[in-house]
Amino acid sequence: MLKPLQLHHSDRGSGAQQDKNGGGSKGGENGKGKFEHRKDQPPAYAPVSSRYDKNLQFALWYPAILQDAKLIDTKYPAKGFFTHMPWSVRAMKRMYSLYEAELERTGHEPAWFPAVMPESLLKKEAEHLEGFNPQVFWITQIGSSTLPKGERLALRPTSETIMYTVYSNWINGLADLPLKIYQSCQVWRAEDETKAFIRGREFYWIEAHDVFATMKEAEQQVMADIAMSEKVIHGQFGIPMLFVKRPAWDTFPGAEYTYAADTLLPDGKALQLPSTHLLGQKFSTKFDIKFTNSDGKEEYAYQTCYGPSIWRIFGALVAVHADERGLRFPFEVAPQQVVIIPIKAKTAEDDARVAQKCNELKEQLEKAGIRAIIDDSDKKPGFKYNHWELMGVPVRIELGAREAAGGNVTLVSRTEPGKITVSEDKLEAAIRDMGKRLNETLTAEADKTFNDSFITCMTIEEMRENKAHRGFFRIPYCSIANDGGECFDRLKQEFEVAVRGTKVGEDEKPPEGCMCVGGCGREAGMMVYAAKRY
Amino acid sequence: MLKPLQLHHSDRGSGAQQDKNGGGSKGGENGKGKFEHRKDQPPAYAPVSSRYDKNLQFALWYPAILQDAKLIDTKYPAKGFFTHMPWSVRAMKRMYSLYEAELERTGHEPAWFPAVMPESLLKKEAEHLEGFNPQVFWITQIGSSTLPKGERLALRPTSETIMYTVYSNWINGLADLPLKIYQSCQVWRAEDETKAFIRGREFYWIEAHDVFATMKEAEQQVMADIAMSEKVIHGQFGIPMLFVKRPAWDTFPGAEYTYAADTLLPDGKALQLPSTHLLGQKFSTKFDIKFTNSDGKEEYAYQTCYGPSIWRIFGALVAVHADERGLRFPFEVAPQQVVIIPIKAKTAEDDARVAQKCNELKEQLEKAGIRAIIDDSDKKPGFKYNHWELMGVPVRIELGAREAAGGNVTLVSRTEPGKITVSEDKLEAAIRDMGKRLNETLTAEADKTFNDSFITCMTIEEMRENKAHRGFFRIPYCSIANDGGECFDRLKQEFEVAVRGTKVGEDEKPPEGCMCVGGCGREAGMMVYAAKRY
Repeated sequence: MLKPLQLHHSDRGSGAQQDKNGGGSKGGENGKGKFEHRKDQPPAYAPVSSRYDKNLQFALWYPAILQDAKLIDTKYPAKGFFTHMPWSVRAMKRMYSLYEAELERTGHEPAWFPAVMPESLLKKEAEHLEGFNPQVFWITQIGSSTLPKGERLALRPTSETIMYTVYSNWINGLADLPLKIYQSCQVWRAEDETKAFIRGREFYWIEAHDVFATMKEAEQQVMADIAMSEKVIHGQFGIPMLFVKRPAWDTFPGAEYTYAADTLLPDGKALQLPSTHLLGQKFSTKFDIKFTNSDGKEEYAYQTCYGPSIWRIFGALVAVHADERGLRFPFEVAPQQVVIIPIKAKTAEDDARVAQKCNELKEQLEKAGIRAIIDDSDKKPGFKYNHWELMGVPVRIELGAREAAGGNVTLVSRTEPGKITVSEDKLEAAIRDMGKRLNETLTAEADKTFNDSFITCMTIEEMRENKAHRGFFRIPYCSIANDGGECFDRLKQEFEVAVRGTKVGEDEKPPEGCMCVGGCGREAGMMVYAAKRY
Repeated sequence: MLKPLQLHHSDRGSGAQQDKNGGGSKGGENGKGKFEHRKDQPPAYAPVSSRYDKNLQFALWYPAILQDAKLIDTKYPAKGFFTHMPWSVRAMKRMYSLYEAELERTGHEPAWFPAVMPESLLKKEAEHLEGFNPQVFWITQIGSSTLPKGERLALRPTSETIMYTVYSNWINGLADLPLKIYQSCQVWRAEDETKAFIRGREFYWIEAHDVFATMKEAEQQVMADIAMSEKVIHGQFGIPMLFVKRPAWDTFPGAEYTYAADTLLPDGKALQLPSTHLLGQKFSTKFDIKFTNSDGKEEYAYQTCYGPSIWRIFGALVAVHADERGLRFPFEVAPQQVVIIPIKAKTAEDDARVAQKCNELKEQLEKAGIRAIIDDSDKKPGFKYNHWELMGVPVRIELGAREAAGGNVTLVSRTEPGKITVSEDKLEAAIRDMGKRLNETLTAEADKTFNDSFITCMTIEEMRENKAHRGFFRIPYCSIANDGGECFDRLKQEFEVAVRGTKVGEDEKPPEGCMCVGGCGREAGMMVYAAKRY
């Protein structure tokens, strides 16, 4: 285990404080041998996230990096409500934008629905009400007037009942279908335990609510949602996931069934990322969403809903991709993609040339659609290098008198050793290539960690031998219908793991005669995945 | 006055219904002579917004165009909460994006603050509380538990008290200043009278909250906010405004003073667009936002806040720019910039070529960053032309067998008569030029209408002679401090106009000896602007 460094990144501004204890250990002096200080780096500039080991001290590391990189402020005087600081907001805006582009490419249109619903709407679907009611924030007063019971307003914990009330007016005939709408918004749920970017009373997500004329199309949409999740979250954000069909007891309140994706955080616990739900006709019958079908008869429509939480995906992105030096953002997500660092020259004249060149390059990059900043603060270059590595900027340009004279530019990647010199006219292409390689590196490293986290245990004894395993247990199991609930409880009790469900797209069967590991004494009908979870 | 046509644009889908009464009047047959049907346009396709005259029947025209162009659904069962449909959301997202780019260009950073505040925060600034409390939505219950009085949560009606609570932790020294933060979000106010995109219980805005080390910088920021409003709202959205210093009784609760911009809707009533407020030290003293100044002493910081409502600006944009055929969007704001309409050819082979060419052009335009759609529905071309003119798409491409054969493309602008033929390789440039001219036309027409709406009346008799004037009265007035309030009431009583304030940037003085028109019997010290208002 690492001892925390005595070095602290400043709480504000971009300055690191000098070590108050007069020096002390360096981030590189840890037992893991993964991280080495560069020679040009004085001790006081040691990367702050190396105070803790991400994998072994995740509970300490995670809040520390959120604070060091100024991603979130958790000190607000209302429980579970956070302030999202510019660096994380810039990244989440990019993530929203990439996700929305894919939703629109696949036929979804954006809309904005009300943030509140009258109580009567929430009550229309009984299971849904029961599932969400304990977490609902209720508005009961306006100014100094009290709303009559029955007219009080719920702050949306999710938008099914809001959107489907409106949909019932929009949908009449086959010409109105399919209807595919998404909204990017906040939802509010009074969670008891909150954790920044993982569980909050206010969080930022996208919800897509689609309506079809046939069950088959709805089922296809659920599969399309899974494919979209894979394309965006894994393909663009580099976060690996396991998509499973959730057990009956974990199905969305009001849905026929639920598929959900789990990723793993560095502590080996599963974190649910998006889920997609086949609602079938469960809501359409309650909210009167019907159409005249081709036989001229009225038919209730078939629905799906899909909810990727940008907020939580951001938390996973931070946790999965960071290394000992700090954040690492995929190129398209990075709040800034390039930081230009002027290197002090020998003459004031040369300094002016350097400054001018910095501005020219920044402008050139921005014209090419690359987000770039100049760090012309008074800090030393070594400090700046570490700071922007901590902040996860993919590419650094070091610009001194030689570069200012024109011709070549020096590039450093967040994920590659050494420097690269490219001619100015090839700058954009070189940066995009570097970004591409960075994405590949992040994805490959994350995939390897993820894929190494699966273990198959065919008996309870095998599970006991591997009790310390951090990640997924693949185990023979009786049933993910409600009759499998007691085995769920027993495994939870003994191993603290939760059965997450069966793998989507594969019908994984245990060998004949294999028993359920949950202790029910029944033969196992399926392989399921279990893990500790958030 | 026009009689409403018996023609109705369909409530859903893009189809217009056939006239149920078997024909009837055409939109062009009105007494104003402004609008003439094109020859290729059958009666049933008459532009629906021509049912009403925008200027003479605004109260009928405005909700009709919102419905016809599918911008908003107002039928939700919670008063003052609306559903924003894809076409308006796409435009408002563009408007957000353009505004945010300008805020960031001028040094603002994005952040997301909580949507709720504990009661204690709202109570910290007494005037602010008094101003907003009657409109506050209060959360008093979570699930089935009741929050103790004093812990209840207000849904933000504006974010001063939320953000400044957080700012007090972020600001300590000169190095932390200036702090310039904006957030794009919704706010909620329990308005009694609501009107789509003009006044709602939920609306979409940007709020920028800046903190400085000196009063001078804060004052400069207020002027910079005015310049930014002019640049974006007038320069990019084409909406003219008059910026005034608001009278004391219209100053933001808790501010030193308020500047606000009024535009005019076609009914001649003023609508407030953004306002910017000099808060000075009024909030910093209550929220303990202080810094150590260069003399080593603690000093309370100087603040400004600025609130452009994208939602309301969108309403103004619809109202100001629309013509008899429907919406007209500035090129950069348009949800889609180009609609490609395939024209049926004589052979199936040619039809296939046309379809293929449509796809090629769409792809070519999208690569160039131009938003384009193909309308390949079964409707007739004339119907489609009218539909997309109603929807305000700036450029139409008509694509038949001749164009599919390659070489040239036929373009039609939303604001120019006739067609233009351009060679394919000049397509992007021709469209951008067309967009530029369209913007110039929209702005010039809006400016002319706006500038023609000012009348100067030096006496109450002159005002009486011009009582029917629709627009701004420029009048000599006693005082916009609190002692001018009685004259405000008298003018409101007699003319239904509200004194809006004194023009920013000009010290407009009436001639010596000129009396206040408000009836106080005092000499006028200033020229003010008055108008009917929303």
